[in-house]
Amino acid sequence: MEIALKELARLVGGVVSGDESVVITGVAGIKEAMPGDVTFLAHPRYEKFMQTTRASAVIVAPGTSGQDKPLILSDNPYLSFVKAVEFFVPNKNNYPRVVHPSAVISDSAKLGSEVAVGACAVVEDGASIGDGTVIRPGVFIGRDTEIGCDCLVYPNVTIREEVKIGDRVIIHGGAVIGSDGFGFAKDGDVYRKIPQIGNVVVEDDVEIGANVTIDRATTGTTRVGKGTKIDNLVQVAHNVVIRENCILVAQVGIGGTTEIGKGATLAGQAGAVGHIKIGDGAVVAAQAGVTKSVPADTMVSGYPAREHGQAKKIYASLQKLPDLLKRVAEIGERLAKIEEKLKG
Amino acid sequence: MEIALKELARLVGGVVSGDESVVITGVAGIKEAMPGDVTFLAHPRYEKFMQTTRASAVIVAPGTSGQDKPLILSDNPYLSFVKAVEFFVPNKNNYPRVVHPSAVISDSAKLGSEVAVGACAVVEDGASIGDGTVIRPGVFIGRDTEIGCDCLVYPNVTIREEVKIGDRVIIHGGAVIGSDGFGFAKDGDVYRKIPQIGNVVVEDDVEIGANVTIDRATTGTTRVGKGTKIDNLVQVAHNVVIRENCILVAQVGIGGTTEIGKGATLAGQAGAVGHIKIGDGAVVAAQAGVTKSVPADTMVSGYPAREHGQAKKIYASLQKLPDLLKRVAEIGERLAKIEEKLKG
Amino acid sequence: MEIALKELARLVGGVVSGDESVVITGVAGIKEAMPGDVTFLAHPRYEKFMQTTRASAVIVAPGTSGQDKPLILSDNPYLSFVKAVEFFVPNKNNYPRVVHPSAVISDSAKLGSEVAVGACAVVEDGASIGDGTVIRPGVFIGRDTEIGCDCLVYPNVTIREEVKIGDRVIIHGGAVIGSDGFGFAKDGDVYRKIPQIGNVVVEDDVEIGANVTIDRATTGTTRVGKGTKIDNLVQVAHNVVIRENCILVAQVGIGGTTEIGKGATLAGQAGAVGHIKIGDGAVVAAQAGVTKSVPADTMVSGYPAREHGQAKKIYASLQKLPDLLKRVAEIGERLAKIEEKLKG
Repeated sequence: MEIALKELARLVGGVVSGDESVVITGVAGIKEAMPGDVTFLAHPRYEKFMQTTRASAVIVAPGTSGQDKPLILSDNPYLSFVKAVEFFVPNKNNYPRVVHPSAVISDSAKLGSEVAVGACAVVEDGASIGDGTVIRPGVFIGRDTEIGCDCLVYPNVTIREEVKIGDRVIIHGGAVIGSDGFGFAKDGDVYRKIPQIGNVVVEDDVEIGANVTIDRATTGTTRVGKGTKIDNLVQVAHNVVIRENCILVAQVGIGGTTEIGKGATLAGQAGAVGHIKIGDGAVVAAQAGVTKSVPADTMVSGYPAREHGQAKKIYASLQKLPDLLKRVAEIGERLAKIEEKLKG
Repeated sequence: MEIALKELARLVGGVVSGDESVVITGVAGIKEAMPGDVTFLAHPRYEKFMQTTRASAVIVAPGTSGQDKPLILSDNPYLSFVKAVEFFVPNKNNYPRVVHPSAVISDSAKLGSEVAVGACAVVEDGASIGDGTVIRPGVFIGRDTEIGCDCLVYPNVTIREEVKIGDRVIIHGGAVIGSDGFGFAKDGDVYRKIPQIGNVVVEDDVEIGANVTIDRATTGTTRVGKGTKIDNLVQVAHNVVIRENCILVAQVGIGGTTEIGKGATLAGQAGAVGHIKIGDGAVVAAQAGVTKSVPADTMVSGYPAREHGQAKKIYASLQKLPDLLKRVAEIGERLAKIEEKLKG
Repeated sequence: MEIALKELARLVGGVVSGDESVVITGVAGIKEAMPGDVTFLAHPRYEKFMQTTRASAVIVAPGTSGQDKPLILSDNPYLSFVKAVEFFVPNKNNYPRVVHPSAVISDSAKLGSEVAVGACAVVEDGASIGDGTVIRPGVFIGRDTEIGCDCLVYPNVTIREEVKIGDRVIIHGGAVIGSDGFGFAKDGDVYRKIPQIGNVVVEDDVEIGANVTIDRATTGTTRVGKGTKIDNLVQVAHNVVIRENCILVAQVGIGGTTEIGKGATLAGQAGAVGHIKIGDGAVVAAQAGVTKSVPADTMVSGYPAREHGQAKKIYASLQKLPDLLKRVAEIGERLAKIEEKLKG
């Protein structure tokens, strides 16, 4: 596939600075790019590679310091690059739409048109799979679970019974959706299991990472809102509600019944206790331990998580703490001497 | 199914306050309940919903502030609710007891009576599965592994060779039991694998969450004690011994050879280094990093984990640290002025 | 199998102290050993068991305090023990080299000689598996993925398309290799997926733990260097480069594009943000949160991670912080009194 830079700029929402007639034949990262490739510069950290990249053109923000190379100027270079990748790289979801003979599909399951079901996948009674959805090998889909259209479920995923998955949802390998919530009532020394009779709802355009676990609700629904993206190894407990367009980075853990507001971000390994609310647009820094509700549009960090400006001051002060201890001891001695003197 | 409130109270170990003749037809959480449902109030946080719930009756602790609704008074409302759920909701483990023709079962494996083995599950040589146990699709059971009676093993679980699982154990999707312990001997710059020749023993009434990993012992046994409940994505290293009735919340990690005493609780994302002992009844707070043994019946928190009362004081003091630095600097200046004056 | 202690000492690179003629018939840990077994003492913590072990001989470092038992003196007792285990315990990778009839193998896949493929495993178009490699049941191997010789891939592992795995690699149950990197471009309020068109390369002699996730690169390669050992539930993000002979303990998370230098160690639950470099030979303590690059041969700990000596001082000082606050308040009062006095 090839395209003139001028044409590509139009496709990706940018304008050319430099030779518009350069022919582009592929896309690559700034370090890996070869002649013929378009690449991009989204992070100032990589500006040094502008000098050395072998790419034939670079997508940059307007005002990026002058280079000899042809540029595509874009207000959102990352998004423009995505559009370039989409142009050059075939859709990953182009699996042949066939049901493998080794797949085990209940007679009462409903498959839409153009559905693929991979080898050794299992679809149980009453489950339904929407048009254009691809189920890869080894996937388990439980009783009465509904999966929407144009989804892509990677190998060895487990989706338990009565789960509802929207359209265009991507679920990566090994994820488990609808496992029992972790609920036990103490009966003397012994824990007695609370039957988990709720379900999980995953709305449209959600992406769920590899080996993620999302528990079903005790009663009611555990919900993942439209457009939310969940990275690998994240834990979502029973009755959690995640609103639209949130980002949960790898190894995040959310306690039971907690609510994550629209557009919130939880960075890697952050944790939130149960029964709290993380406000709309809030940002939780990596490894933060959130022990109480976070107001909307607030960034928190540290353990226990505090407003980020304050936390940063505290963590910077920590460095001075050992010296401070010495200093206060010394001040105490000087003060005692003065007191002694004044007494005398 | 329907039952008079009077009768239900008897079943769940409570007494009615209000109209005993109300007919109950189901159970639900306080927010989702509809007329006909019984619900419960176990956490004061939800007391506000007592006014608005549509439930026909509520299970509460004696002394809960007066409501118009019929109540069941119970010393353990949560446990009473569990009993109500068990009455109304059919047992989850009611799968047809058949061996699917696509399951691959060794001729030398022994299956008890009333055993179910799901599609594409694999049971290897010499393995045994006790009466009434349900193995769901895609499960792998290795050579000479023994699984007890009335267990429920969810899809895509991997149980390696020579593991022993007791009775009434529940293992959620994607869990891996008996993977090699992480042991290497340094040989110059290179790490040489230490063969892991021990096993894993999981005692009766244990529940193991989705995508949990429990490593086999280097030599000897990694053990999970009777009645212990393990949440999703927990890591249990080689030679760990967990005693009875412990709670390990999601994403906890336990280092090799560490022992967890009876009835201990580790909250979410907590970690314990290897070769220590967490005492009976100890509580480790969420995200705590335990670097040395914890006495029985002690709560610890923070990193490194300290006795919780002390840790709470420290974390509260942290807030004042930036101001303290300024204050000590200012005190130093005032002191210097006095010293100057007294010298003069 | 039996062997005289003298002969065993030669095999494991040690020399006998005591009766060389003792016959050894097995290996075991110091607590589990029975008469006939050789055991080892690698950690001073276990020295107390030297008195009580039932083992017939013990592998120890030269200079270990005198015992009645026959000893093998070795400069690296742990490594000598590994060699003893290798002598007594049959290789774990001795599965029959057959392709199970229920495995689903593309006509265009290439299988070397002496390859085993387990029940319900799937090998897709263009994939290749080297001589002597064992693929266990339920494993998925994607299109054009190459797996080297003498590898062992445990059940229910997912290896996506275009991944390259070297020789003698061990991958434990449930691991996912080659899942999409977590990359999204913001388009208004909505996140738009960045197609992940790179791959993953796992070099020779790597071991990957149960339920580990290793994402493919956005463009280019996510790489795990020769001899590196990765414990369970570790997350390796897109474009990470891990050099040779590193150790990543359970539940570690590495952010995108970060580089881990040769021989580095990351202890349990540690995290590193993206776009940094952890130097050769560096050590990151358990639960540390690494927010900036770490120089070679440096140990860091805490959050945010600092040089370990400094961090230890800080964490020790923390204990005194509540008292320090009181002390400074009291000093302030005394100082005010003096100032008052001097004014008067």
